[in-house]
Amino acid sequence: MSEKVKIGLLGLGTVGSGVYKVIKKFSDIEIKKIAVKNLNKKRNIEDINLDLLTDNGELLVNDPDIKVLVEVIGGIEPAFPLIKKAIENGKHIVTANKELIAKHGKELFELAKANNVVILYEAAVAGGIPIIMPLKLSLVANKIYRLAGILNGTTNFILTKMGNEFSEFTTVLKEAQELGYAEADPTSDVQGYDAAYKIAILASIIFNKRIDVKRIYREGIDKISPIDISYAAEFGYKIKLIALAQDDDSGRVDIRVHPMFVSKNQPLAHIDGVLNAVTIEGDTVGKVMFSGAGAGELPTASSVIADILSIVNEIGRTDYPLPMMRCQHSDDAEYLEIGNITSKYYIRLIANNSPGVIGNLGIICGKNNINLYSIIQKGILEDGCARIVLLTEKARESDIQTALNEIKSSSSIKEIENVIRVMD
Amino acid sequence: MSEKVKIGLLGLGTVGSGVYKVIKKFSDIEIKKIAVKNLNKKRNIEDINLDLLTDNGELLVNDPDIKVLVEVIGGIEPAFPLIKKAIENGKHIVTANKELIAKHGKELFELAKANNVVILYEAAVAGGIPIIMPLKLSLVANKIYRLAGILNGTTNFILTKMGNEFSEFTTVLKEAQELGYAEADPTSDVQGYDAAYKIAILASIIFNKRIDVKRIYREGIDKISPIDISYAAEFGYKIKLIALAQDDDSGRVDIRVHPMFVSKNQPLAHIDGVLNAVTIEGDTVGKVMFSGAGAGELPTASSVIADILSIVNEIGRTDYPLPMMRCQHSDDAEYLEIGNITSKYYIRLIANNSPGVIGNLGIICGKNNINLYSIIQKGILEDGCARIVLLTEKARESDIQTALNEIKSSSSIKEIENVIRVMD
Repeated sequence: MSEKVKIGLLGLGTVGSGVYKVIKKFSDIEIKKIAVKNLNKKRNIEDINLDLLTDNGELLVNDPDIKVLVEVIGGIEPAFPLIKKAIENGKHIVTANKELIAKHGKELFELAKANNVVILYEAAVAGGIPIIMPLKLSLVANKIYRLAGILNGTTNFILTKMGNEFSEFTTVLKEAQELGYAEADPTSDVQGYDAAYKIAILASIIFNKRIDVKRIYREGIDKISPIDISYAAEFGYKIKLIALAQDDDSGRVDIRVHPMFVSKNQPLAHIDGVLNAVTIEGDTVGKVMFSGAGAGELPTASSVIADILSIVNEIGRTDYPLPMMRCQHSDDAEYLEIGNITSKYYIRLIANNSPGVIGNLGIICGKNNINLYSIIQKGILEDGCARIVLLTEKARESDIQTALNEIKSSSSIKEIENVIRVMD
Repeated sequence: MSEKVKIGLLGLGTVGSGVYKVIKKFSDIEIKKIAVKNLNKKRNIEDINLDLLTDNGELLVNDPDIKVLVEVIGGIEPAFPLIKKAIENGKHIVTANKELIAKHGKELFELAKANNVVILYEAAVAGGIPIIMPLKLSLVANKIYRLAGILNGTTNFILTKMGNEFSEFTTVLKEAQELGYAEADPTSDVQGYDAAYKIAILASIIFNKRIDVKRIYREGIDKISPIDISYAAEFGYKIKLIALAQDDDSGRVDIRVHPMFVSKNQPLAHIDGVLNAVTIEGDTVGKVMFSGAGAGELPTASSVIADILSIVNEIGRTDYPLPMMRCQHSDDAEYLEIGNITSKYYIRLIANNSPGVIGNLGIICGKNNINLYSIIQKGILEDGCARIVLLTEKARESDIQTALNEIKSSSSIKEIENVIRVMD
């Protein structure tokens, strides 16, 4: 490369600062312009060249010198319209914006194809962990039939801390907010929206289908109690917020985000704190796992810069882009409804101290095709009631829901405290 | 690609059979010829086309139709001369041959450069786990300063089984041989040669230097006893055969293969059985880990085919190969001698039952700059002696060796049973 490739940086927050700092290593790339919201904000960068800053994103997307637009502002507005214009102006896109790709990927990829540019988004999923490029390139010999990940560091930090300290969710959330590991409004992390965007992106790659993020079944971690984590440990599991994508024999996809018991025999169970991990099961490779930092200034910059370099290596070649750099899917996925999935389940409930409770539970489960694997009752609680914990074998979700309704309306049962799916 | 790319397959053993089976998925690739040692051997492939087989490897390397030679026979002869001739004839090479790349990589890469072809070898390290391509492509923004891996499935299987069953090394080795997890001559696995080839390859990539495999410090697992594994568990560790590559501030490389205590806080400690894993620490990404099947017919084929596809996508382009597909290093590494490394150590010894033993150990350690972190003695053995286990803080290897010599010659010490380095 004789001349430097000029890039435009949209955003100079945490990730943008990381990109600014690390990109200096590469003599063949130059940041020509950086668009920020507030020109007067103090930046955490030692030798920042303030001449590069503008508060007008249009300047970047309309600059013919800029070959690659790097978008690290996040969210839909103004990222979406600016990226669209940049693509129409023939610029390649590198983005860390999971929400944008998950919600508007279809429109963006079609636009990119029409304009013969590429959109790379390694940093949108699992921060610094290489996952999208390995899926497209290194695992190309595989039909991937299952992918399960811990894709949200905030919730993994909260669950780990709850388990280590036997603390309640609300207490640990507050600590996480004070440490800066959770947002002031924690909804996107805690309720699984963030993980849902990410699994939508990964599922679209492994199934080569367009995924509608609204069709992803989603439960948050706010109902998890330290009691659940203790029972999990007793059974040989940890509780993790799992993002799962798998397909059934008929080609329907089963994509969901919810807490799960994860067997300690699985490396995934040992991914603690803010770490992320992705396990991939393919027909050729078997099962592989990638883990590491899922967020942060420098880890995320590591992925953004890898994408920039991939594009820089392609610019000027006569027949780019490479097939693997294109997004090829155009078909919409067909979905397996949540009622039709099968899983093992953990059920924690409070029973009145009356005779025949266990027998009654057994009968309800039996007639709904649910085999019990374990049942634990440890004495009687102070109020005279009993806490009973069930672990089922594999059952159909709709059967579980029917059984839970019957259990709930049974006079010997006071309350169903929690139900969590189980992954062996 | 309008015309099929023709490849030649050198070898039809375990990996070759996997390649044969999986490559059929790809309509743009065709196996033109397969060279085998024995034409009459029964093949574990349903619909094998016997017309493709020859026992003359020269036919492949001299066939102008064949654009890519895939070498999966292993070892130096006849792989080395055949590959050299293939390169001279302008063919790209995909190989799973760790020994060949580790020992003769320099000559091969120079020859490849002179002939404008590439050599890809993803399958040579960690079987199906994508590691070389992610290092070269996805982690390109990083200076990698440490890489630690479990790179040999046989020894990991043996150590896991020894720990689970409290069995001796020789017993478990025999079982592993019966199960086909260990070779009849287990030396290459058990003594760490196999792992040394692999870490040499990875180190050459991360340090961008030529690594002499003979300079890699190496210890096997044959001295590990179930007692060591029990003590490790008590201290919060597992014992793994670790292949390590790191550089010090002066740019010297520290590359070694030996058993280590690995803290259970590390995901690496939870990689059990025949699985492999690699952790990579970079200045930008922090620490990432890749794990999965390190061997086997299909997992290894997954990596071989990814490499073939990478080359097929490049063939016919005007300005290939991509920079990341080339091997750029030409400088020899400088080595940190084993005496100059620092580590924590586990020391297991037998003392005579005489007064002042512990005090004496403490004095010897102290004057050799070794701080003790833990010391355990559990009662007196049947013969009246005592087993003492020490865990040190970080110390210099040469100081440890001096101290061990003094301890050995001390009248109160009967025997130093084992010394194992510790990784937190």
